[in-house]
Amino acid sequence: MSIHRLSLNQATIKHASLSQALEVTAAAGIEAIGLWREPVAEVGLARAATMLAASGLRFSSLCRTGFATDPEGPTRRAAIDENLRGIDETATLAGAGAPGSAAVLVLVAGGLPEGSRDLVGARSRFAEALDELAPHAAAAGVTLAIEALHPMYASDRAVVSTLAQALDLAAPYAPETVGVVIDSFHVWWDPALLPSIERAGAEGRIASYQACDWRTPLPADVLLSRVYPGEGMIDFATMTRAVEQAGYAGDIEVELFHADIWADDFAAVAQRTADGYAGAVAPYLSAARA
Amino acid sequence: MSIHRLSLNQATIKHASLSQALEVTAAAGIEAIGLWREPVAEVGLARAATMLAASGLRFSSLCRTGFATDPEGPTRRAAIDENLRGIDETATLAGAGAPGSAAVLVLVAGGLPEGSRDLVGARSRFAEALDELAPHAAAAGVTLAIEALHPMYASDRAVVSTLAQALDLAAPYAPETVGVVIDSFHVWWDPALLPSIERAGAEGRIASYQACDWRTPLPADVLLSRVYPGEGMIDFATMTRAVEQAGYAGDIEVELFHADIWADDFAAVAQRTADGYAGAVAPYLSAARA
Repeated sequence: MSIHRLSLNQATIKHASLSQALEVTAAAGIEAIGLWREPVAEVGLARAATMLAASGLRFSSLCRTGFATDPEGPTRRAAIDENLRGIDETATLAGAGAPGSAAVLVLVAGGLPEGSRDLVGARSRFAEALDELAPHAAAAGVTLAIEALHPMYASDRAVVSTLAQALDLAAPYAPETVGVVIDSFHVWWDPALLPSIERAGAEGRIASYQACDWRTPLPADVLLSRVYPGEGMIDFATMTRAVEQAGYAGDIEVELFHADIWADDFAAVAQRTADGYAGAVAPYLSAARA
Repeated sequence: MSIHRLSLNQATIKHASLSQALEVTAAAGIEAIGLWREPVAEVGLARAATMLAASGLRFSSLCRTGFATDPEGPTRRAAIDENLRGIDETATLAGAGAPGSAAVLVLVAGGLPEGSRDLVGARSRFAEALDELAPHAAAAGVTLAIEALHPMYASDRAVVSTLAQALDLAAPYAPETVGVVIDSFHVWWDPALLPSIERAGAEGRIASYQACDWRTPLPADVLLSRVYPGEGMIDFATMTRAVEQAGYAGDIEVELFHADIWADDFAAVAQRTADGYAGAVAPYLSAARA
């Protein structure tokens, strides 16, 4: 059972400290980790970078900034500042990770501003935010990775709902500056998924692939509905082959938001993540890369 | 406040009998009704047609058949038979409704068969079902209206998730035989919505427009999350104008699945539906048609 290229996204063990997350990941034989800004901030960026370096793990991405759909004003300025800080944090952490680390910052667009129904306007304002952020990202050597979220989050979390839409938003920028995240949970249903993955590859924009499964019935809180790879309805064989054929050779994150998983023992979660990945994702990676 | 072109879909007053539904609709000054197969079957088709004729209401659609994603076998044959019966029922009811009635049968594709992850296969089997049904629909003068459901239902209810995909499925057939439903709740998030509506109009395939609002946070059962027009986040001004510009001049259904609405008094629900429609939808219909 190979877990090569697996990265444990820290959200999967949400209640672990950074120190615990690094330890549990390494102990499970997983070689890479995706970090979240909050647990990094808890210890401070410099200390986080030292701890990451000491762990010997690769760094696969930082989650997350974005949330830049508000009209001009203090809320928007604060969001832009957070994004700029996120870029710097990503550069530092990628520099501290083991060779093969990726300087990738995940961007979630944000939903409709309070009381607004102007979806088109919200999308434009996110596009304008990219324009402000791209020069800083380019200077820092960081890739802003736009993550399309499932359409059920369009009103409250992300007005970017499809991979094609994320690619359209990324199009004005160099691919090393603005790319996309392909998160299986969010995009598996898309009738245009395979052509969009192919396009993302041809444009050199696949900054991250996340393998998280979808299962119905959904729990009461639809935000917390992601399950281990192989435990849901997603055809990881087809999607994984497509992502690899499109040229993606980086780490593959498993990022699970689920109340039951969060309540579980960290080491048990890391092990079950590794098992899920080994069973449902790894077999579809080419031997040359696996 | 105009409620011209409003049709109350019977599901909005789910616990009403057919007799009650017809009465409540007419009493609220609503001129059209969309029926469901189950309450029609309760009184029998012939009696339902007589009751509908006596009500003086227009008939805007019958909900619903489809659910034809299973591989060949008894389950699939039963589904095809239900669809054929639904076609006949639609023809009878449309004939009994007031002038301006529409012989429209709503088709929901169905989800992944139990235990399957083959989304592409499920879609193909639904397409094959259309091939079986289209000749019967054409002979009966009934339009099969494919309804794209929100992607959050892709695994368990409908493997058709976007309007563009519904149009692709309809493409091999005459537009009067296979069309599409545009249900705002299901498609509002789609970045390709406006071009898809335009395409649907150009191809003459808009068989039904349903105005149902979307509001987050979603309730525990995401199937029951539709709210009155104007009470959620959907921009009905833009969508309604687009549907009308695309040439749709038929009735506009409000179809709400929501536990609170179902628990409410039927007449109060009809009135609130009329008010929501008058405030959020009707103002965007052209004067010539309103």
